[in-house]
Amino acid sequence: MRRQNLALVLGSVAEHGPLSRADVAARIGLTRAAVSSLVVELAAAGLVVELGPAPNGRVGRPGNALVLSSQGPAGLGLEIGVEHLAACVVDLGGAVRAQARVAVVNRGRPAAEALAELTALAKGVLAEAGAAGLRPVGAVLAVPGLVDAASGRVVHAANLGWRDVALPRDLLGVPLGAENEANLGALAELWQGAGPADFVHVSAEAGIGAALVVDGGLFRGARGFAGELGHVPVHPDGKACACGARGCLEQYAGEQAVLAAAGMPVGPSDAPGAGPGDWVALLADRASGGAEPVLAALEQAGGALGTALAGAVNLVDPESVVLGGAYAELGEWLLPAIRRELAARVTVRPWEPEGLVVSALGRRGPLLGAALVTVRRILADPGRLAAQSA
Amino acid sequence: MRRQNLALVLGSVAEHGPLSRADVAARIGLTRAAVSSLVVELAAAGLVVELGPAPNGRVGRPGNALVLSSQGPAGLGLEIGVEHLAACVVDLGGAVRAQARVAVVNRGRPAAEALAELTALAKGVLAEAGAAGLRPVGAVLAVPGLVDAASGRVVHAANLGWRDVALPRDLLGVPLGAENEANLGALAELWQGAGPADFVHVSAEAGIGAALVVDGGLFRGARGFAGELGHVPVHPDGKACACGARGCLEQYAGEQAVLAAAGMPVGPSDAPGAGPGDWVALLADRASGGAEPVLAALEQAGGALGTALAGAVNLVDPESVVLGGAYAELGEWLLPAIRRELAARVTVRPWEPEGLVVSALGRRGPLLGAALVTVRRILADPGRLAAQSA
Repeated sequence: MRRQNLALVLGSVAEHGPLSRADVAARIGLTRAAVSSLVVELAAAGLVVELGPAPNGRVGRPGNALVLSSQGPAGLGLEIGVEHLAACVVDLGGAVRAQARVAVVNRGRPAAEALAELTALAKGVLAEAGAAGLRPVGAVLAVPGLVDAASGRVVHAANLGWRDVALPRDLLGVPLGAENEANLGALAELWQGAGPADFVHVSAEAGIGAALVVDGGLFRGARGFAGELGHVPVHPDGKACACGARGCLEQYAGEQAVLAAAGMPVGPSDAPGAGPGDWVALLADRASGGAEPVLAALEQAGGALGTALAGAVNLVDPESVVLGGAYAELGEWLLPAIRRELAARVTVRPWEPEGLVVSALGRRGPLLGAALVTVRRILADPGRLAAQSA
Repeated sequence: MRRQNLALVLGSVAEHGPLSRADVAARIGLTRAAVSSLVVELAAAGLVVELGPAPNGRVGRPGNALVLSSQGPAGLGLEIGVEHLAACVVDLGGAVRAQARVAVVNRGRPAAEALAELTALAKGVLAEAGAAGLRPVGAVLAVPGLVDAASGRVVHAANLGWRDVALPRDLLGVPLGAENEANLGALAELWQGAGPADFVHVSAEAGIGAALVVDGGLFRGARGFAGELGHVPVHPDGKACACGARGCLEQYAGEQAVLAAAGMPVGPSDAPGAGPGDWVALLADRASGGAEPVLAALEQAGGALGTALAGAVNLVDPESVVLGGAYAELGEWLLPAIRRELAARVTVRPWEPEGLVVSALGRRGPLLGAALVTVRRILADPGRLAAQSA
């Protein structure tokens, strides 16, 4: 009961702060004395702090208003992408306080090597966060593949060439979990985006990742592998896919498909460990310049995405479709064809063009989501942390 | 609290009966006196009865064991199909106790006319059930289209030609609700089938209906229209569909597509109100006889179904796929192609061939599900009924 009340007080401060103890008490229906006692515990755990007397001397509100601490417990986000590594630390308010990203080809690279370079990157980010008084209490690694979140194993990450990779239980002393990057991108959108609580989130790096958010939570499916939009057939007799099938969406809207259609050098010629080019920025740049082959490639990708998404909308009936990750940065050229296909193929029940939106988070989504998982856990159950610090 | 306990006692008898009062008390952790008092109420509402002394004179178990009543409160299921009308009454144990079905073309027929004929059919079924001591306390109508279950309106049933049809609030004095027929077929499978609690259920009559069952409940989607598998694109540049799009599954695996491919007369030439042929039985009969065009048509339909279902499995990650309705009766000829497509297209994560199963309920599913909705409601909250009868 006390643990639930700790969460109520902290949640109230997180959502509505700055708040006085009396404001909190009124909001959650506890006595001011009970709130004060809970605040003592939350403050000792470094989760809330009191603002000093208001500098403008306003009357009516005493100076001892409570806010989330901008120091202390925090979340560490980590990401191993096919062509980058990244780390960031997010404070309790969800603000990114330290981050680093390096462009490097991880395709076909041994997992241990990629993890070692990621660890070095994270060390710098943790040092920067530490200097700002932040102490990450949990880390989540975003991986482009099937992740068994419970056991911390990467079951299969085709575009990295990983199969059944066990991850370490901690990284630099911070407890480590793992999650599919598309799921984390969708969670970041859910937690920091402006949209509804029911959506299909689709993103791309080397592969295509999608995730379903239903009633404000991830829809994982019976085995935890829901959201494999990249292997939904869009042209059943079409191009051969690395997965063994024909005509998967990835063969029409994945990175290599788009680059090949645009007549641009294709990524995997890069050596593992080397620094790749930023194909998203390159495509956007050339599309802005009106390069016909690039515009045609993006139009084709948008059409295929629209076909697959029309199937998804007919099947799952989400409130909206969110274009995230690299797709968000190419939205200007993808959207018209996606919108056209959705309008043409979702006709037996209502579908509004406004249901298709572009994420403001873009490629930052998965890493941000990874860091926010820990912050959300702290806010949902501060008692666990308070008990540890007591 | 008492209402919850009524449900616990009744649920215990439903699942494990015959049970003595002492058995029930032991199972649900109430005193024997409390159970006895609850049983009085359930018996007064006609929900449980006591068996007489065991005829074989066994010792150890007194004769006053409790079972669900085979009389009294019951559920009425109703169905308006594109080519049939049906009604049935199901008792508390889920057994069908009275039923009637008539083959009649309802395509393009005024809703009031179809409802009037259905009412006449239901009258006979209710009379038969009444003679057996059964009293339906709720009715649900299965409709092949989009149903707003809350308001009791049929938003759109393309194959009936209905748009925005308001249904009466009761039928022959029994409170009436409505639900999509594919959803009801899936619920019947969930409640009476042998399978898991996470599956995609796909069925066909004139159109193709699908429903998702997740964690033992219907997955309805944000607007309540999830499961439109029939309009998932399988050949995006393919045949024109009545919905306005091209290449929808319905154009390859729907009734008319299969009959046309098999070179057999196509249904809609039948006049509304007339008695159509049973195309499912006809197809099965000819396929059994080895008719090449029919075998080829079913193989093509199976391939298209497999393509669409592969997309659904990749996206939603169900534990199994259940072939229901008319498809169940054609399973022998559809399954090989569906299995082949699933094996070829669901490769980036585990999928076992055993995940594809055929419903034992077949075309009886939706009507049975419609009747069971009321029975499940009684079992979940017998207190409501007990209060009315008190």
